[in-house]
Amino acid sequence: MRDLTLSDVDDIARGAAILGAGGGGDPHIGRLLAEAAIGRYGPVSLVDIAEVPEDAVVAPVSFMGAPTVGIEKLPSGQEATVALRAMERATGRPVTHLVPIEIGGVNSVIPLAAAAETGLPLVDGDAMGRAFPETHMVLPTLIGVSCTPMVIVDDKGNTTVLDTVTNQWAERIARAVCTEAGCTVFTVDTVLRGGQLADGLVPGTLSLAQRVGRAVRESSEPVASACAMLDGRRLFVGKVADVARHTSAGFVRGQAVIEGIDGDRGARMRLSFQNEHLVAERDGEVVASTPDLICVLDSETGEPVTTEGMRYGNRVAVLGVPCDRRWTTPEGLRLTGPRAFGYDHEYVSIISGGKR
Amino acid sequence: MRDLTLSDVDDIARGAAILGAGGGGDPHIGRLLAEAAIGRYGPVSLVDIAEVPEDAVVAPVSFMGAPTVGIEKLPSGQEATVALRAMERATGRPVTHLVPIEIGGVNSVIPLAAAAETGLPLVDGDAMGRAFPETHMVLPTLIGVSCTPMVIVDDKGNTTVLDTVTNQWAERIARAVCTEAGCTVFTVDTVLRGGQLADGLVPGTLSLAQRVGRAVRESSEPVASACAMLDGRRLFVGKVADVARHTSAGFVRGQAVIEGIDGDRGARMRLSFQNEHLVAERDGEVVASTPDLICVLDSETGEPVTTEGMRYGNRVAVLGVPCDRRWTTPEGLRLTGPRAFGYDHEYVSIISGGKR
Repeated sequence: MRDLTLSDVDDIARGAAILGAGGGGDPHIGRLLAEAAIGRYGPVSLVDIAEVPEDAVVAPVSFMGAPTVGIEKLPSGQEATVALRAMERATGRPVTHLVPIEIGGVNSVIPLAAAAETGLPLVDGDAMGRAFPETHMVLPTLIGVSCTPMVIVDDKGNTTVLDTVTNQWAERIARAVCTEAGCTVFTVDTVLRGGQLADGLVPGTLSLAQRVGRAVRESSEPVASACAMLDGRRLFVGKVADVARHTSAGFVRGQAVIEGIDGDRGARMRLSFQNEHLVAERDGEVVASTPDLICVLDSETGEPVTTEGMRYGNRVAVLGVPCDRRWTTPEGLRLTGPRAFGYDHEYVSIISGGKR
Repeated sequence: MRDLTLSDVDDIARGAAILGAGGGGDPHIGRLLAEAAIGRYGPVSLVDIAEVPEDAVVAPVSFMGAPTVGIEKLPSGQEATVALRAMERATGRPVTHLVPIEIGGVNSVIPLAAAAETGLPLVDGDAMGRAFPETHMVLPTLIGVSCTPMVIVDDKGNTTVLDTVTNQWAERIARAVCTEAGCTVFTVDTVLRGGQLADGLVPGTLSLAQRVGRAVRESSEPVASACAMLDGRRLFVGKVADVARHTSAGFVRGQAVIEGIDGDRGARMRLSFQNEHLVAERDGEVVASTPDLICVLDSETGEPVTTEGMRYGNRVAVLGVPCDRRWTTPEGLRLTGPRAFGYDHEYVSIISGGKR
């Protein structure tokens, strides 16, 4: 166990945004909220999975919706408390710990804000080891844990509690509610018991995010440092030549084209995204795909570039980072592989895909 | 108090479909469900508002969605029990009585089926005195009663519980859930205490529906009998010449054109509907509008013709029937008058509008 204080937030937000594969929302907003909450309520206790009792009630808290909207519509700050109370009414059990549902942008730092506000300890880990765009795309789905009861709170104060027959139905109904409520809502779902954390979470990802964030801030070669720390592979360096993006059904979807510079001059990379980057093609050939992480960094500073923040002219490095191994099982790929997002090709592993 | 038995269902369904102003769903389906439930579980106790104790918990039960879909997707029969249990968990209070939320087609007989299944008494009345297409368009909204908690159950077994800041938000979020779940769901909302029934319900509408249904079945002049019993006005007799109908956002919307016969030969009536008939124009002039009831009957048999059942060539009589007086107050008209549905004209009262 260790305390997270104001000075930890910046590195966690930066590293998590890198691990978020372009998704998870603007880390700047999460950072502001977390800093404000820690400033007001004091530090947050960060605990390892091994420290959590078997019968603990661990609640993932997050924002759902299109990041393009999230950057314009700030949360009210009351959502976490309202949502956790509704969850406690729905389950009849007090929540004992919070945890991020994913590592990525706003959704890695929102739990810090919620933990500061509620005084609950925060578990060092998350349910994806990256960010994915849909509710059911979490490791708990692979071990048969229900995403419901799921609580959805909007900025008007409307509360919705779902109890669905499958985790895919939780995604479908929650997305409809999210879209109607203005494309960004606060959610609590996929509550885990302490004994389920080893199978349901990727351990230590908040600490990993913090180390990556610090390395990028301190290193003289930030992209190389981040890449080494994540056991990743540098896929491409170039200049963003085109970004097509639209917001529909509560998602931001689109494609970006990057023209190579330096060693990649003359080549072209196309990134396809749905909140997160899902497929990277180099000159028409798939070189990385979901569930592996496709991470876009400023090629000079190593700062993360989110799918909604990417702009014409940005100079970027594209990294491929191996996902948690549980995602590469047949069941894992069925849930989060390319075909789960409608692509007509198999998963291309970063590890087996070529030289580092 | 009196018992409703198998032999009562048919007249109630017919009369309610007439009072439903074209909406409320196909009465045939509700009739089948109610007859099956009463056949299995025995008669239903129908109680007057005056017989309900002050502290009773009275739950309106209904189907929500587009009637065009409702006729193709039958309920599973488990929805009422699942939904009432969820409502009891949400409020912490056992439901003591059921009541129709509206008078119209399936939604007047579904509460009979639910009452038979659960053994709960059914209150003789409803929250509209007709059918309206949207959740918040109920008399309880006029007296400040919340439509939430609202429970929504679909045919897959997914349950959604809403707690919203306004009744309009209950409609918006419920409609989004309904649409995602396939355009027809079972709902429990706008729970009333016994002491609120006098202001929140139109009394005696199930008995009225039964009397109208019986009159149509027994009379040699069924249209004239129904019209007299409802204190209505015969607006038009003609042949349906055109029906344009589309299903969107969980509603069926459209227009029907009727060409006059007999005394109305040479004239034309246009009916505009959103689940229910909302405006009747005779040769371009508005002769009846929501919140008054525009009821379409087979001109020979007096059988109700629903908005989704109307077909080219049907010979129909169009009746205008005065709504409950509470709808014609400024607050009532703001909620259910023509402008609430996007029409750019004032309410035209059936009573003041011309000769009987």
